[in-house]
Amino acid sequence: MNVTIVGAGNMGRGIATRLAAGGHTVALVGRTEDRAATVAAELRANRPGAGIEAVSLDTGLVNDIVVLALPYAAARDFAAANATRLAGKTVVDISNPLNGSYDGLVTEPGKSAAEEIAAILPKSKVVKAFNTTFAGTLVDGAVDGHALDVFVASNDGAAKAAVLSLVADSGLRGIDAGSLERSRQLEGLALLGITLQMPLGLGFKSAWKLVA
Amino acid sequence: MNVTIVGAGNMGRGIATRLAAGGHTVALVGRTEDRAATVAAELRANRPGAGIEAVSLDTGLVNDIVVLALPYAAARDFAAANATRLAGKTVVDISNPLNGSYDGLVTEPGKSAAEEIAAILPKSKVVKAFNTTFAGTLVDGAVDGHALDVFVASNDGAAKAAVLSLVADSGLRGIDAGSLERSRQLEGLALLGITLQMPLGLGFKSAWKLVA
Repeated sequence: MNVTIVGAGNMGRGIATRLAAGGHTVALVGRTEDRAATVAAELRANRPGAGIEAVSLDTGLVNDIVVLALPYAAARDFAAANATRLAGKTVVDISNPLNGSYDGLVTEPGKSAAEEIAAILPKSKVVKAFNTTFAGTLVDGAVDGHALDVFVASNDGAAKAAVLSLVADSGLRGIDAGSLERSRQLEGLALLGITLQMPLGLGFKSAWKLVA
Repeated sequence: MNVTIVGAGNMGRGIATRLAAGGHTVALVGRTEDRAATVAAELRANRPGAGIEAVSLDTGLVNDIVVLALPYAAARDFAAANATRLAGKTVVDISNPLNGSYDGLVTEPGKSAAEEIAAILPKSKVVKAFNTTFAGTLVDGAVDGHALDVFVASNDGAAKAAVLSLVADSGLRGIDAGSLERSRQLEGLALLGITLQMPLGLGFKSAWKLVA
């Protein structure tokens, strides 16, 4: 599939790496075209033949799936500025609405970043995914021999299935986490994991797994 | 150590099994003494020499660590009725404040069961633990070859350390999850896991692991 990733930071790089590994074509939109071009060239160098191109926003937004690989505030701003162009599309929110001290969330208690973004994009199919997986672990795809679990939540079944399919192609384990409301718990899970990195010395290399 | 477990249901049985495996002595207080006696006898039969006795509430509450292995509403009621006797003690809250359809929490958004119980027990040292581990997995102590992760949160460092020590003795991996506020995320984590049991056909045999 052709997937657009908005954001060429560490998370954009990690998700692009996985999608390219799964044989998908990535249109990477950066804050500047130069930045996206640098990241795309690096990823192609790491994986010769990888279908990753830096594109302009106008070109990138033609794809049906758009991943907002942006911090929460930037994702909100981007959604608000591009709501019309994102109408009808599957928009993947990966954000964690962390406060400045990384020990709490800035969203209203009982709400989630994904639900806030869905409210800004009422004509898009918003999917929560990749918010509990750290950037470096996405580059590798696995931690300690375990394929990453990627929890995917949405109120749109077809959009969720498409994202779960991308995740599976990427060599990860997609888990259907239910409706978009479950983003409240997924964002809490990410917060919990983030608070544990420093005390446990994990260096953002850990992963949450549901083992059975 | 001598630990009191209030509640002889599945969770009480699971935690008692682990503590006995770790060489600790358990005073089991049931809704009725008959019920606790039956469970204690069963556990001793499974592990000859296990220090598990059914006791009355009056006898049980002499121990310094009291695990409330009760559903949330019952734990609140028990705490309110016994606040004076629990003063100065380490009180372990394992509850998940699930709604009737098991797809949401009855606590106020942004609050946790553990914080509510701590408010009822201002003179006790409240510790959150064992709320993300299913009863059957506690009996076994492991899932798919992985020792269970037990997340422990409290505002009292010494009480938390004591519980982490019990967990480690029990063959489980205790993780210091920080202050009692983290119970918000731990209870969200349990909710997320519970919502996934039916769709994924996990039969309450799964476990959350932080792998690294």
